[in-house]
Amino acid sequence: MVTLGFLSAIAIGTALLLLPISTTGQRASFVEALFTATSAACVTGLVVVDTETFWTPFGQGVILVLIQIGGFGVMTVASLLGLLLSRRLGLRTRMVAAESTHTVGLGDVKKVMLGALRFTVVAELVLAVVLTVRLMIGYGETFRHAAWSGIFHSLSAFNNAGFSIYGDSLMRFVSDPWICLPICAAVIVGGLGFPVLLELWRLSRTRRGDNRRSALRDPARWSIHARLTLGTTAVLLTVGTVFFLVVEWANPQTFGPLSVPGKLLAAFTQSVMPRTAGFNSIDTSELNHGSWFFTDMLMFIGGGSAGTAGGVKVGTFAVLAFIIWSELRGDPDVTAFDRRIARATQRQALTVALVGVAAVVVTTLAITVSVSPTVLPLDRVLFEVISAFTTTGLSTGVTADLAGWHQVLLTVLMFLGRLGPITLGTGLALRSRHKFYRRPESAVIIG
Amino acid sequence: MVTLGFLSAIAIGTALLLLPISTTGQRASFVEALFTATSAACVTGLVVVDTETFWTPFGQGVILVLIQIGGFGVMTVASLLGLLLSRRLGLRTRMVAAESTHTVGLGDVKKVMLGALRFTVVAELVLAVVLTVRLMIGYGETFRHAAWSGIFHSLSAFNNAGFSIYGDSLMRFVSDPWICLPICAAVIVGGLGFPVLLELWRLSRTRRGDNRRSALRDPARWSIHARLTLGTTAVLLTVGTVFFLVVEWANPQTFGPLSVPGKLLAAFTQSVMPRTAGFNSIDTSELNHGSWFFTDMLMFIGGGSAGTAGGVKVGTFAVLAFIIWSELRGDPDVTAFDRRIARATQRQALTVALVGVAAVVVTTLAITVSVSPTVLPLDRVLFEVISAFTTTGLSTGVTADLAGWHQVLLTVLMFLGRLGPITLGTGLALRSRHKFYRRPESAVIIG
Ligand SMILES: [K+]
Ligand SMILES: [K+]
Repeated sequence: MVTLGFLSAIAIGTALLLLPISTTGQRASFVEALFTATSAACVTGLVVVDTETFWTPFGQGVILVLIQIGGFGVMTVASLLGLLLSRRLGLRTRMVAAESTHTVGLGDVKKVMLGALRFTVVAELVLAVVLTVRLMIGYGETFRHAAWSGIFHSLSAFNNAGFSIYGDSLMRFVSDPWICLPICAAVIVGGLGFPVLLELWRLSRTRRGDNRRSALRDPARWSIHARLTLGTTAVLLTVGTVFFLVVEWANPQTFGPLSVPGKLLAAFTQSVMPRTAGFNSIDTSELNHGSWFFTDMLMFIGGGSAGTAGGVKVGTFAVLAFIIWSELRGDPDVTAFDRRIARATQRQALTVALVGVAAVVVTTLAITVSVSPTVLPLDRVLFEVISAFTTTGLSTGVTADLAGWHQVLLTVLMFLGRLGPITLGTGLALRSRHKFYRRPESAVIIG
Repeated sequence: MVTLGFLSAIAIGTALLLLPISTTGQRASFVEALFTATSAACVTGLVVVDTETFWTPFGQGVILVLIQIGGFGVMTVASLLGLLLSRRLGLRTRMVAAESTHTVGLGDVKKVMLGALRFTVVAELVLAVVLTVRLMIGYGETFRHAAWSGIFHSLSAFNNAGFSIYGDSLMRFVSDPWICLPICAAVIVGGLGFPVLLELWRLSRTRRGDNRRSALRDPARWSIHARLTLGTTAVLLTVGTVFFLVVEWANPQTFGPLSVPGKLLAAFTQSVMPRTAGFNSIDTSELNHGSWFFTDMLMFIGGGSAGTAGGVKVGTFAVLAFIIWSELRGDPDVTAFDRRIARATQRQALTVALVGVAAVVVTTLAITVSVSPTVLPLDRVLFEVISAFTTTGLSTGVTADLAGWHQVLLTVLMFLGRLGPITLGTGLALRSRHKFYRRPESAVIIG
């Protein structure tokens, strides 16, 4: 059902983009319209035509609506599935620990939908105003153009879509904290995922009886999911910023010409964007190839669950890290923040991550065996594949060099990457096949 | 203790290789001797000088002894650790299923040692005779040279070392099944691991009361470990042969000039060797770059546990595959061949595999950020790193282009790769920290 709704949104979007009113010059070809509509609905941000010059404001508006459907729509569906999940797990979970129902006992469906909608609209409006003011003051744009640009980038950022009406993405704003930081903030918030946002919002309204402090200041009351998501996000942002600072510091094509604050801003932006947003304030093709490989890892990890982000999700990554940590410590339970991670959760994390690895490896292999390595070396192929699978939309600039069936492969991967981990994760969690007997246990020698 | 013995073997080997009697011309430099000794003791097979022309038969003999220590020695230690492990798990395992004690109840230490030694000597002798006869008849070599070559390649193959006294490895024998197939057989048998071999040997001697058929013909009596190892090996060999046949069929630099049976033989050899042995009958640097990436995967998986093979091991790979399969089917237990895989085993497999991925990713990243991509593109770096980590010793021919500290990094990785997964796997399995309380359980949203 979700898939059908998604496909019809893409079909209607394609039809609208084919209208003469959508394009400034000649009409769009069917493939151009289809690719753009898919890329928008999957919040990927890969483009085959220049968004700034090729499409009219009407065409750009169609793209925006598709982004909102793909981003907000998927977020809502994922949240509802999570809610359904909480219903089924609810009783047992509550028996185990009342505290952990913070995340999953979200209240009724309508409330969740309205809450998400209200939050989305307010957040997007605030960002749009900030960007509009800055574009008028700092860059002398007319109100009309600045406002349109502000709204477009606000929605694109919040939904982690990475579409920009500027042909060079955010490269002209590389040293402007008034543009980059608000967009980074929107990307991070949009990428945390709805359950975490809702929890933070509710906690900020819950006050303790004794001193009326916000419950938000008492991390012990946060759910494990929120702590894992926020903690991992903070760690990845820090590690990423340091990595890009060190590696790109003297690269004349990237950070070299920037001032020290400029380098800091660029490194931070560079570490925020690969985790699904896909804007770039630096020319991706000029990065150190080690930075490409590092970006691959960030893209693969992605953002928070049940949000606009792609990838295997930071929660999955954190759970795997805690499994290894517990195992190395010889702890029979996997413990994070004084809570056992449920066995089912562990296996879901493993499955989502390894199925992701398999998808990336098989696609990369299929493309690599069939192209000349001088045209498309492994690092570029891997980058494109991971970017498509995680709907990040960054590119080392070789999308056009790919053969037709490679582009089809990437389009399918984009689609699977957008819906796959979510449906896989919730599908696995929802299913609970009861067994009335267990088979005898067996050990296997490992390592 | 294992590490210390290993290090002193390398030290003594280095000293012997530095003697004038070891080299044909000028004496070896310290680094050449150390690198060769380490590569031999870790059964890796990477070389910085030509084994055929640089070393005298005495020097080659030193290399052989190191290979035997590194291969047989590690196999024995791993088996003893496995035995120790079975002692600790013994009682519970027997209560659960008497059948599964096939693998772990190996009898006493002395018997294991002697059994391993006897098996090794006999198998190596048989292969040496076959190779010697073929080299005398087919290539007109003198008995002396043929016998030395036969012994050298027999030990090198059985220990999965990949050292050859021919400068081009097995490339001159690419179409000769009398050389390639026996060596492949030795590589496969040596790579299965001692527990599987011992089990097969014991099963072949156990006869059923009723019709006196060998128990070997009754797979239901095999342990899960043996079934997983043998089954996965068969699947990987088949998939590998088909892959190389399809991808390299028309490559003028590799399979192109060969006859159809020659292509088949080369594809089979090519699929056997990456799983730790590291001989090559085809020029690795001329392979399709997709074949490099595929070879990366085979190398990473490696061979059987507690044997001479490297990598994360086929058993680990199989357990992860069964975890995913069970999860996708919604089965609460992980089941393989009608047996539940123990939870501890699952977590060990996950840990060994992910720590392996982390080691490869971090090393690759460290090398990639610091070299020019035109000299060392990602695919070559990844190949070298995985080859070193899994002690395979295949190379796309860029080992010499690596900077000094990169070579040091690879040497360390070689060492960690040889001892790491084994000690990690058994270390994790041996430890059992008892807990008197469990923390409340928590779920995290995955995907
Ligand atoms: K994106
Ligand atoms: K080897």
